[in-house]
Order: sequence, then C-alpha cells, then structure tokens
Amino acid sequence: MRIAIDAMGGDHGPPAVVPAAVAALRKHANLHVVLVGDEAILTKALSTEQGVPSTRVSIRHATQQVEMDESPSQALRTKKDSSMRVAIDLVKEREADACVSAGNTGALMAKARFVLKMLPGIDRPAICCALPAMQGHSHVLDLGANVDSSPEQLLQFALMGAALTSAVDNKPAPSVALLNVGEEDIKGDGRVKEAAMLISQSNLNYVGFVEGDAVFKGSVDVIVCDGFVGNIALKASEGVGRMFLHFAKEEFLRTPLTRLAAWVSGPVLKAAVHRIDPRRYNGASLLGLRGIVIKSHGSADQVSFAYAIDEAVLEVEKRVPDLISKDLELIFDQRRAV
Amino acid sequence: MRIAIDAMGGDHGPPAVVPAAVAALRKHANLHVVLVGDEAILTKALSTEQGVPSTRVSIRHATQQVEMDESPSQALRTKKDSSMRVAIDLVKEREADACVSAGNTGALMAKARFVLKMLPGIDRPAICCALPAMQGHSHVLDLGANVDSSPEQLLQFALMGAALTSAVDNKPAPSVALLNVGEEDIKGDGRVKEAAMLISQSNLNYVGFVEGDAVFKGSVDVIVCDGFVGNIALKASEGVGRMFLHFAKEEFLRTPLTRLAAWVSGPVLKAAVHRIDPRRYNGASLLGLRGIVIKSHGSADQVSFAYAIDEAVLEVEKRVPDLISKDLELIFDQRRAV
Repeated sequence: MRIAIDAMGGDHGPPAVVPAAVAALRKHANLHVVLVGDEAILTKALSTEQGVPSTRVSIRHATQQVEMDESPSQALRTKKDSSMRVAIDLVKEREADACVSAGNTGALMAKARFVLKMLPGIDRPAICCALPAMQGHSHVLDLGANVDSSPEQLLQFALMGAALTSAVDNKPAPSVALLNVGEEDIKGDGRVKEAAMLISQSNLNYVGFVEGDAVFKGSVDVIVCDGFVGNIALKASEGVGRMFLHFAKEEFLRTPLTRLAAWVSGPVLKAAVHRIDPRRYNGASLLGLRGIVIKSHGSADQVSFAYAIDEAVLEVEKRVPDLISKDLELIFDQRRAV
Repeated sequence: MRIAIDAMGGDHGPPAVVPAAVAALRKHANLHVVLVGDEAILTKALSTEQGVPSTRVSIRHATQQVEMDESPSQALRTKKDSSMRVAIDLVKEREADACVSAGNTGALMAKARFVLKMLPGIDRPAICCALPAMQGHSHVLDLGANVDSSPEQLLQFALMGAALTSAVDNKPAPSVALLNVGEEDIKGDGRVKEAAMLISQSNLNYVGFVEGDAVFKGSVDVIVCDGFVGNIALKASEGVGRMFLHFAKEEFLRTPLTRLAAWVSGPVLKAAVHRIDPRRYNGASLLGLRGIVIKSHGSADQVSFAYAIDEAVLEVEKRVPDLISKDLELIFDQRRAV
C-alpha cells in the first residue's frame, strides 16, 4: 500500500515527519511512503536517517506550504501546489491509498472535501479519534468539524464511528452512545433527543445517553456528539491534564526532599502518564470522505506522528471508507423502502 | 446572618452535613445555622459533636426527603414538607439569608424557581462554579441548568457571572469570555457568534472567544457557555482526572518497589492533588434567583460541604442577588432607551 505524507505540515515539519515515516516503513513491510514537500529539504532529511528502505520511499516535490493560521478558504484557493494539497491529490488520482497531515485542520478538511468529495448523504467530514480510557478506549466523534449538527448528522456520525470501530477494533457490533447531560431519556436538548430516536431505530447497537465522564471510562465503544461539544470537552480534558502535571511538577521541585521523591517515583509516574499519553492516541480520522485522510495533531513529534501513520495503514487494510459507504447505503435504502 | 441547610440531602446526609455546619459555625462568628430535616436524627447528630455553639444553631423539622433520582416535577408536587423545600421556604420568608443543599439538582432548581422566583428577565437559574486553574480560578457558567440557551441567555450568564465574580473575588471589571471551538471571530456556531455581538455591546469586560483548555488556565475570570456544553466539559474533565488517578494507583501498587516509591512521594502527590481537589471548589451558585441558593455536590463529605457553606456566607455578605438584579436592570434600561 502507498501512503502520501504531507511532510511540511505541523509545527515541526520534516524533522518530525521524516523520521516517523522511516520508522513506519520499518514497521510495515508492505508500506510505500510518498513524502510530499520541498524536494531539497526532504532529500537532505532522508539522507541523515539510518537504514532507510529506499525502494519503498519516494519524494513528490511541492512548491507551497499551508500555514497553520491560514484561512481554509484562502488555502483552498491559493495553495494548489502545497504539500497538503498534493498529498490529497495523490489519493484522488489513486497514486496513494491514504494521506496523513499534521497541518492546518480547517484547510485539510476544506481541501479533502473539495478534492476527494464526500460519500453520498454526508455534508462534511466528521473528526473521529480514539481516546484513552480506564478500560481500553472509546472512539469519539465529532471533535470539531461540524458545529451545528442536525439529529440526522448525529445519526451519520454514529454510523461512521461504528463502521470505523468495528473495522479497526474487530468488534462486530460496537456499542454506540450519545453524549448528554444525563442518562435519563428526559435529559438533554431537542437535538439529542431526536438523534436518540433516529439512532435507536437504526440497526446500530445503541445503548443510550452517557455523561461526559463516560469518555474516559471506556464503557462504550463509540460516543457521538456535535463537534462544538466534542471539541470543547476534548480541549477541557487536555487542559485539566496539563494543569495537574503543572501542579505535580511544582510540588516535586519545591524542596531537595521533594526532588528526591520525584527521582524515586519518576519511573512510576511516567508509566502512569504513558498510559494516557496523547501521542499514543494521535491520528484522527476525517470520516465521510471518498478516501482516507488522517489528521495528526499539529504539535506531533516523531513518536506521535508515527502513530498517525499506523492509523492510516490500519484504515487502508480495513478499507474503512468502503465499509462506511455500504452502511450509509443500507440506511438510505431503508428510508426509500418506508 | 442565618443560613438554612438541607441537612438530609446528598449521598451522606446528616453525618456529613452536621459536622460541616458545626465547623462553619466555628469559622464564622456571625453565622446562625438552621438545620432542616428529621428532628430526632439531627438532634442526635448534633449531640455527638464537640463544642457546638448551641445558641447559633437551630433545628427545623421536616417530615419528607427528596430522593436523589426523583423527577424534579414529582418532587415539586409531592414533597412540600421535604428538608430541601423547607430550607428554600425559609429563604422566601426571610427567616434565612441563603440555603445550601447537596440534594437532587433538578429538584433544587425547580423548587427554588417556584418558591423564590427568578429575577426580572431571567428564565431559569444558571449553575455557576469556580473551577481550579493553573493561575487562580475561573467562574464557569452555565454548568447544566439550561441546555438550549439563546444568545440572549448567554449574555445574561455573562452578566450574572461577572457580578458574582466581581463581588466574591473583589474584581471591579472581571474579564469575560465565551467558550468556543477556536479563538478567531469566524469560529463557532450561530449562537455563539450572536452572543459575542451582544456581550461585546454590553459594558462587560469582554475579551473574546476561548477554547476548552482555557477553563483550567485561569487566564479569564468568567467563562460563559450553554449548559449542555458546560456540563459535558466539566464531567469529561472530572473523568480524565479520575482516569489518571486510577492509572497512577495501579502503577504505584504494581510491585514492592513501586509501593516504596508511592510511600516516598505520597505527600508530594497529595499536595499536587490538593491544589485541584474538587472538594475545595464545592458550592455552585444557582444564579438569577431572588435569593441565594448554593448547590453542593451530591457526594460531598464533611470537608467539601463546609466549602459550600462558606460560599453561601460570602454571597450573603456581598449581597450577590442585589448586584445581579442591578446589572440586569441597567441592561434592560439601555434596551428601552434604544
């Protein structure tokens, strides 16, 4: 399989992306990587890497780069030879089976939607990501692409999230829940109640409403919400994690004695932090497109970006867009039959 | 000042509430507490406490109790002699300056709204709470009372949150932000954009949009959001905290060596956890009522419930409802003048 990588995107660009790509090539024997970006920079970056399987990596030159703070519409209009756009074009032209980018999320969505087009019945990509939980993980969507979702869109998210989870986690009937302010049927706004009705009428394994803390329990496989809610919940959660680490650091640095305690317990704390390390959960899927596009966190380092490539490899192997497309058709057929 | 306490509410009832009330009496020399609930149980609970300032505590008998899972409308209709209702009645009859309850949130809101009534122009109470942050704290509202807020309601939340913060934190012009999926003006749904326009036209110190992680940064004094979003963000944050503590515990209990590390670093970790201890931030205000009603977390223990009483004392001293009422009138006068 061939994966196109926007090698210029993200806060770190080639110094993080190129070593991650080389690591992925070593891990996946059937993988061919196309690094897209400034040829001179990428050639040089590759030359400093040890043991590159050079027959399985190629460079595609692109003259432009999308900035992290550029407006999506401007990027779409003016950056037709950007590393991001060319990587997506390769998927469109079937020269790659998937693409991965750590660049500007809005621009990536706009370009992917414009170039690859959406599956029938889907308006915009939904951002879906596995998040760490006490037991396993949950796939949560939408994490910020759709900020005014209709109940019908929430049903589509449920369907796409279940298809993805079923494929990548090998779960035949993943449980699906709607994020709400309470578990009782009477709780919530009109949108979530109508979505509950739609999803419970589908053939999904719908288990009802869950509250915000369910995201990190792992009791449900797929958690569905509007992108406004999902984005804010995710960022608040990241914020609370950073706050705790900030305070823990301050306390451990307070005196020579606490510094000693830090030295003793450092490996244990690191093991605990490792289990919720956001780097291990890097690689969000833009679902609903006619192709596989994986969004890496902009601040991803080499380790983190490699996880995003792993996600792309897995989705190519499992043919995720085909599965989603089939499930969507089923729903539309049912509707037409009624 | 006199504060009525629903002594039967919450998961623990009198064994948590009575010692908390006694501690509050020792702390605040001008405080008189009215414990509302089963007289026999409360008399007995008080008799086991040491050094009770008995001239400053009284018991008001109530025959009923609102269950934690009872529907608010049912509780409103059938529990007219519940400890919760009688405590609110005491505020209405001016026999108490505020009331505190750890009982069923929905029932507390319904009863408070029915008995005390809302301030002019406010539809439902908004739940506002100070949350810990890297720097100081932020007041966030609404945390779940209003799940379909209009832009106009978000303006009211901003106004009420600013009045509260200004009073209890002694800040003349607290900064106010709207929670959104990005900081740029173009980000977000229609509601948040319209609310931004309304708030920026008010005389509040509006600083723009903030993302979810801002809640725990403390860079803004008041953070405004719809109750659906606020509730889910808060519970997700609690969930991530619990998950991390769960993993840390597992790692520290893994081997004799890691148990030793836990013993060495225990006090330091406790100091870090103390700084974000939800118990220290217990006591949410139901804003917009013609009276002070403080909601304690249902699972509050003695330490935690005492913080909720402190919040009530502070809001009585600062006359928070009067301040809110004055600010609301100003807004309505401006509107009429236009």
